[in-house]
Amino acid sequence: MTVPTEEEQRTLPPKQDFSGWYHEILWRAEIMDVRYPVKGLYVWYPFGFALRKQVYGLLRSLMDRDHEEALFPLLIPEQEFMKEAEHIKGFENEVYWVTHGGTTPLDVKLALRPTSETAIYPMYALWVRSHADLPLKIYQIVSTFRYETKHTRPLIRLREITSFKEAHTVHATWEEAEAQVEVAIGLYREFYRTMCIPVLVSRRPEWDKFPGADYTIAVDTIMPDGRTLQIGTVHHLGDHFSRTFGIQYEDTRGEQQYAHQTCYGISERSIAAVISVHGDDRGLVFPPAVAPVQVVVVPIIVGSRKEEVLASADGVAETLRNDGLRVKVDRREIRPGAKYYHWELRGVPLRVEIGPKDLDAGVVTAVTRLGAKSRIPRADLAEGVAEILRQLQDQLLARAETDLRGRVTCAATLAETAAAVKTGVALAPWCGSRECAEALEQQVDASMLGTEVRGYGTEGTHGPCIMCGKPGSPALVGRSF
Amino acid sequence: MTVPTEEEQRTLPPKQDFSGWYHEILWRAEIMDVRYPVKGLYVWYPFGFALRKQVYGLLRSLMDRDHEEALFPLLIPEQEFMKEAEHIKGFENEVYWVTHGGTTPLDVKLALRPTSETAIYPMYALWVRSHADLPLKIYQIVSTFRYETKHTRPLIRLREITSFKEAHTVHATWEEAEAQVEVAIGLYREFYRTMCIPVLVSRRPEWDKFPGADYTIAVDTIMPDGRTLQIGTVHHLGDHFSRTFGIQYEDTRGEQQYAHQTCYGISERSIAAVISVHGDDRGLVFPPAVAPVQVVVVPIIVGSRKEEVLASADGVAETLRNDGLRVKVDRREIRPGAKYYHWELRGVPLRVEIGPKDLDAGVVTAVTRLGAKSRIPRADLAEGVAEILRQLQDQLLARAETDLRGRVTCAATLAETAAAVKTGVALAPWCGSRECAEALEQQVDASMLGTEVRGYGTEGTHGPCIMCGKPGSPALVGRSF
Repeated sequence: MTVPTEEEQRTLPPKQDFSGWYHEILWRAEIMDVRYPVKGLYVWYPFGFALRKQVYGLLRSLMDRDHEEALFPLLIPEQEFMKEAEHIKGFENEVYWVTHGGTTPLDVKLALRPTSETAIYPMYALWVRSHADLPLKIYQIVSTFRYETKHTRPLIRLREITSFKEAHTVHATWEEAEAQVEVAIGLYREFYRTMCIPVLVSRRPEWDKFPGADYTIAVDTIMPDGRTLQIGTVHHLGDHFSRTFGIQYEDTRGEQQYAHQTCYGISERSIAAVISVHGDDRGLVFPPAVAPVQVVVVPIIVGSRKEEVLASADGVAETLRNDGLRVKVDRREIRPGAKYYHWELRGVPLRVEIGPKDLDAGVVTAVTRLGAKSRIPRADLAEGVAEILRQLQDQLLARAETDLRGRVTCAATLAETAAAVKTGVALAPWCGSRECAEALEQQVDASMLGTEVRGYGTEGTHGPCIMCGKPGSPALVGRSF
Repeated sequence: MTVPTEEEQRTLPPKQDFSGWYHEILWRAEIMDVRYPVKGLYVWYPFGFALRKQVYGLLRSLMDRDHEEALFPLLIPEQEFMKEAEHIKGFENEVYWVTHGGTTPLDVKLALRPTSETAIYPMYALWVRSHADLPLKIYQIVSTFRYETKHTRPLIRLREITSFKEAHTVHATWEEAEAQVEVAIGLYREFYRTMCIPVLVSRRPEWDKFPGADYTIAVDTIMPDGRTLQIGTVHHLGDHFSRTFGIQYEDTRGEQQYAHQTCYGISERSIAAVISVHGDDRGLVFPPAVAPVQVVVVPIIVGSRKEEVLASADGVAETLRNDGLRVKVDRREIRPGAKYYHWELRGVPLRVEIGPKDLDAGVVTAVTRLGAKSRIPRADLAEGVAEILRQLQDQLLARAETDLRGRVTCAATLAETAAAVKTGVALAPWCGSRECAEALEQQVDASMLGTEVRGYGTEGTHGPCIMCGKPGSPALVGRSF
């Protein structure tokens, strides 16, 4: 792992070949190893894990404002898992079951959590007693499991989802739970905005909501191949689960009431999005906010001034670290070009070069991952670098927003919808019936993603339903991962 | 969760009744909820999780000096799990097996990792190519699973170990792996020292080593009831696993060599130790280094100066937070005594009280969890509090060391050994034979824990084996959890 391997030197497939690019970048940049000997399970390389740490550190910092982190068991006894009828129907085909301890068959089969409602809510029934205990807002970050029969893909469709952040809140009334849904959407928007990922928010159709929910709001982004990726969901659970699990509180008049709940989640698809939205033909491009390495310092070592240059490189790194940045100095004895390649592939936002000429001029040379080159006086180093990283962050967001806007088409006809979903999404008027949605999905080979769309270019697509001609309102249609 | 409940007000069992005390403190201080409906699985309350975060934050900071964090899958296919013969024998009776996905029987049974050698080493076989890739030092913090048939106990003996930090290193030679064993012991000593927990280090008997290891070094502490708790192990794996999994490197002469390995782990028993070693009749006592709340500020609100006092309390908290401390202000409208009780139970190292008299005198009143009271001028607040916390940290370590020293007896006879293990451990000369160890264990109702003991009072117990009279060297004997 010390020098670029021959494979690293081979050209990465162009990003236009998104599927090939994605597959290659994951192992070349040492994010995930796909060679684990079970389908749908992957290994986080240390560098990938460092990225995960940044992304989930950001997510934690947002959640911690108004939630508490806890940890519930992975194994759910069959009788708890089977309590909520709709919920079971949604998951029964994809639950892994533990049936044996050693060679002994278990008395009660244990499910590996596909999601944790049925692990958490029996405890909430014990924890919630009075209106004074509400609202209760707890989250955990855990592995969840799905026996996927579809094609699996690292970070996107897995059998072990290794980084599921799931929040579960309890409220006195339906309206308070509804307000919490909006709070959650706000947090998720902020999370993605900080990672420079533009999102479309919509309400999933009735038949596509979370099993056991009143309604589901989803957060999608658009991937380079035009397909949508669901990267967050927020569910209003009403009192379905509280009635099933007996989550009741005593109200101010001394009466027992069933609580109202929400849950919302984000998985490592958030990392798939960071990788896919920003990367380019040369590799990864990380927004400074979540880059595992924000600045790499490359000493340009020639001839007799090697020690002086190395000392200066260390000094620069020290200054930047003191300013709170994540910095590496690449002291390897290989040519600078190989180092540039190595760190560009790994998405480092800023490269700082220091050679004898820079030393003499009292400057460093800074090159962003997007190729902008500048000289920063050594005396203004910290401020100069911070300013470049701020600008890069804005630039990445603007670039991603422009791209997403270009992929959202306001369509008024079936033909326009069919054309739009080849490169992105359509916003087409729809009457709301399942019949029209299914006919539409079949004819354009895409999915009815949702209504009440919030995001980019989402105004002005009211009109007659493109299928039946009845009054319609804008609906999001696209091909999804 | 807002006011002390009646149960909280009930007197905690005295710590002398350790088993009762431990059981009660865990839920009263909101560390773990034991009511999850599966034996041996427990729920981390938010406050317990905050403690876990501090303890594992400390552990991570030590590991990150010279290891990289990664993440490997939970599910291990049967054929990988079954590769190393000794290893299987050690675990086959306590492995949970996943046999079904939905209603479909799996082609290959999947084990829930009881430990991750067999998940990680197939990947190491791919990752290690050359001597330049070595040493490789990686760790992960994960859940592991054991189908325990013994009596389970939160944080101590579980079916889901939720916080297993396991490190796995690869080296060119046996000697380098041996040196890494010493590095690991050093890290573990530092970890426990920072938590003010004195430890005894010893080499486990041959028959009690990790399945598949050349030898095992264990870290134990002594619990309040005199029993030992194993809170860390370090294993030299030799080349057993590298031969099984094909972990080879090309040496400097171009020849393929099998690598040598170590692994070492720490679980949430580290948290059981912090709770048990330091707690007292009034509840938990956390060392400042890992206390989830280091300082609680209690405004003494009387009469007309309420707002002034509250504002001052917030100011004090702000000053201390800026100094990097974890601080809570308890603004609840309950009497101060109830607040004192609440935070003492939860182990907060320092309480800062502010009332009208303190305001007038320009001071705050500081009371440590051990009862030492002082006044700190408002102007010296940060320094004053930092100094008190430093002293408290030293005091807790000294107190715990004194206690442990008092429980280590250098025994020269069977009778002295039998007496010693009632309140702690004996260091008794032993010839090294399994026969003598088993006879000894039976006669004193305790375990032969190990030899080459490092720690407290561990010198000077050479002499004739207390069982057979042949030459012996000091061995650690005690009753263990």
